Amino acid sequence: MTLPPLAVTLGDPAGVGPETVGKAWSLRHERALPHFFAVGDERAIRRVWDGPVELVTTPGDAVAAFDRALPLFNVQDGGQTQPGEPTLEGARCALDTLGLAVGLAQSGAVAGLVTGPVSKRQLQSIGFTHPGQTEFIAERCGVLADNVAMMLAGPGLRVIPITIHVPLAAVPHLLTTELIVSRGRTAAKGLHRNFGIEQPRIAVAGLNPHAGEHGSMGDEERTVITPAIDALKDEGFDVFGPVSPDALFTPQARQGYDLVLCMYHDQGLIPLKALCFDEGVNMTLGLPIIRTSPDHGTAFDIAGKGIANPGAMIAAIRMAAEAATHRAGQAA
Amino acid sequence: MTLPPLAVTLGDPAGVGPETVGKAWSLRHERALPHFFAVGDERAIRRVWDGPVELVTTPGDAVAAFDRALPLFNVQDGGQTQPGEPTLEGARCALDTLGLAVGLAQSGAVAGLVTGPVSKRQLQSIGFTHPGQTEFIAERCGVLADNVAMMLAGPGLRVIPITIHVPLAAVPHLLTTELIVSRGRTAAKGLHRNFGIEQPRIAVAGLNPHAGEHGSMGDEERTVITPAIDALKDEGFDVFGPVSPDALFTPQARQGYDLVLCMYHDQGLIPLKALCFDEGVNMTLGLPIIRTSPDHGTAFDIAGKGIANPGAMIAAIRMAAEAATHRAGQAA
Repeated sequence: MTLPPLAVTLGDPAGVGPETVGKAWSLRHERALPHFFAVGDERAIRRVWDGPVELVTTPGDAVAAFDRALPLFNVQDGGQTQPGEPTLEGARCALDTLGLAVGLAQSGAVAGLVTGPVSKRQLQSIGFTHPGQTEFIAERCGVLADNVAMMLAGPGLRVIPITIHVPLAAVPHLLTTELIVSRGRTAAKGLHRNFGIEQPRIAVAGLNPHAGEHGSMGDEERTVITPAIDALKDEGFDVFGPVSPDALFTPQARQGYDLVLCMYHDQGLIPLKALCFDEGVNMTLGLPIIRTSPDHGTAFDIAGKGIANPGAMIAAIRMAAEAATHRAGQAA
Repeated sequence: MTLPPLAVTLGDPAGVGPETVGKAWSLRHERALPHFFAVGDERAIRRVWDGPVELVTTPGDAVAAFDRALPLFNVQDGGQTQPGEPTLEGARCALDTLGLAVGLAQSGAVAGLVTGPVSKRQLQSIGFTHPGQTEFIAERCGVLADNVAMMLAGPGLRVIPITIHVPLAAVPHLLTTELIVSRGRTAAKGLHRNFGIEQPRIAVAGLNPHAGEHGSMGDEERTVITPAIDALKDEGFDVFGPVSPDALFTPQARQGYDLVLCMYHDQGLIPLKALCFDEGVNMTLGLPIIRTSPDHGTAFDIAGKGIANPGAMIAAIRMAAEAATHRAGQAA
């Protein structure tokens, strides 16, 4: 069975997205990449990459072109945006690109969606009211943002932060048993659906040092986290914890689970970036469509210099393809 | 110049300390360990290790014996304590051992002190009022506990957590500019004194995700941390930050500093254990004596089973010897 290609958005035309997509295509044989095509402003990629680009208007044409050139769905309204110099036109182009690509994924014309990096600040300047691309995609798919989960993954480690872009001081107040249960459920179902793991084993981190050490250093483990673990077990999920956060990421500990539910952003992102630095992928679980993205930002400071590392973009493309294969197998 | 030997305490006789000290001696040639002797109850080590032990009463005798047997200063009041079954007698023995060893280090009879793991809970049961061994040692040395810093180190990474064994919710309230400045000063001086680093380069982590992202996710970076960095720079130290916590531990970032000041326990301990799992060493900076310890606990659950890993004990012995060599060179 042949799957349709993946759609890969260039993200902000002033960021490193275009360069990493071009470089990924150049490595398509070496890294055994699946068919994909770019979506975005043709000029943004031609400015920073001298490989062959072929404009296409259907996924079928993209597959036919893939071997000889990077196929591209042109979204030509990024204006004169130069690398490293974000503009409002560029932000509008990034948003139009995203909307088009989500539509392609919803229609089934593409097997999944890989999104290049955008600037939240630039998007806010043009009236975008979502916290990020994830929430926009969830809304387009008719899913409540509360019911999707941001999973960050690299070789040998997958994490879901329960709270994300909030001050550390707010974390203890924002953590609730319901939220942990909801994320745990999304995680277990998502690992089954996208990676074919029958009964995913999920570790739950504590919030406090040593997971509170019997309440002597904080009691959220007892009052909030353990009840969530119990509830998830009652639903039949294979969940354990709360585990002392610093004990959870040793090589030995990493053998014992498929994913860690982390209580806050850096609890998950610090070990992920320490261990998987250039290959971190962000996958949204809980959506009807497949959506991954490289776990880095627009990096305006290095855009256009030819030094952007395509490792995370390549990993994001590969993970989307892996999920597409598993979903197709389950549907068959 | 020949340095005196190191003193290595067995810690709680029911823990893994005795076994790891015996195993370290067995690997003395392979790992090029300096002369050291054990301090503790002879029976505790004979129960769990079948290598040769020779009782000595002076550091000179210990050096003479080191090649043929593990030299041991006997502190015989651990009673009948069995591995994995901590007792009050065992806790008293661990405390007597520590007091003796600190005295040896203060007198200059030994080059430095390596402390085996103790149980804080057991020590509290016999009336010990310090939070841990570190504060006890500081008091014996006439140094305020506020003026010492716990540094955790492994191959390629050194961290100092500014706040340690406190609930995560308390961290934002406990962080002060003065505390960060004090720890930064102790860190810079300690790296120079113990490792011979002329002008140590110190990275300071942010508290919030993305270091607050210009105040949009917490403002402690602006109100508390940046003023501390400025003050340390004014004193002539080479300090930079606040850095986004998740960007600080990638292989590339780790090339850019000698040590990270972390705002809370797990911000430093998660990456340290993820990267240096079995070789983490705890060194107390700011003391007149050298003191290191393996970065693990008593592990009562595996004590006496012959499976304890001596890697961290060996690393602690080696780091104490390295510091002794640097201090001797600076004093000469």
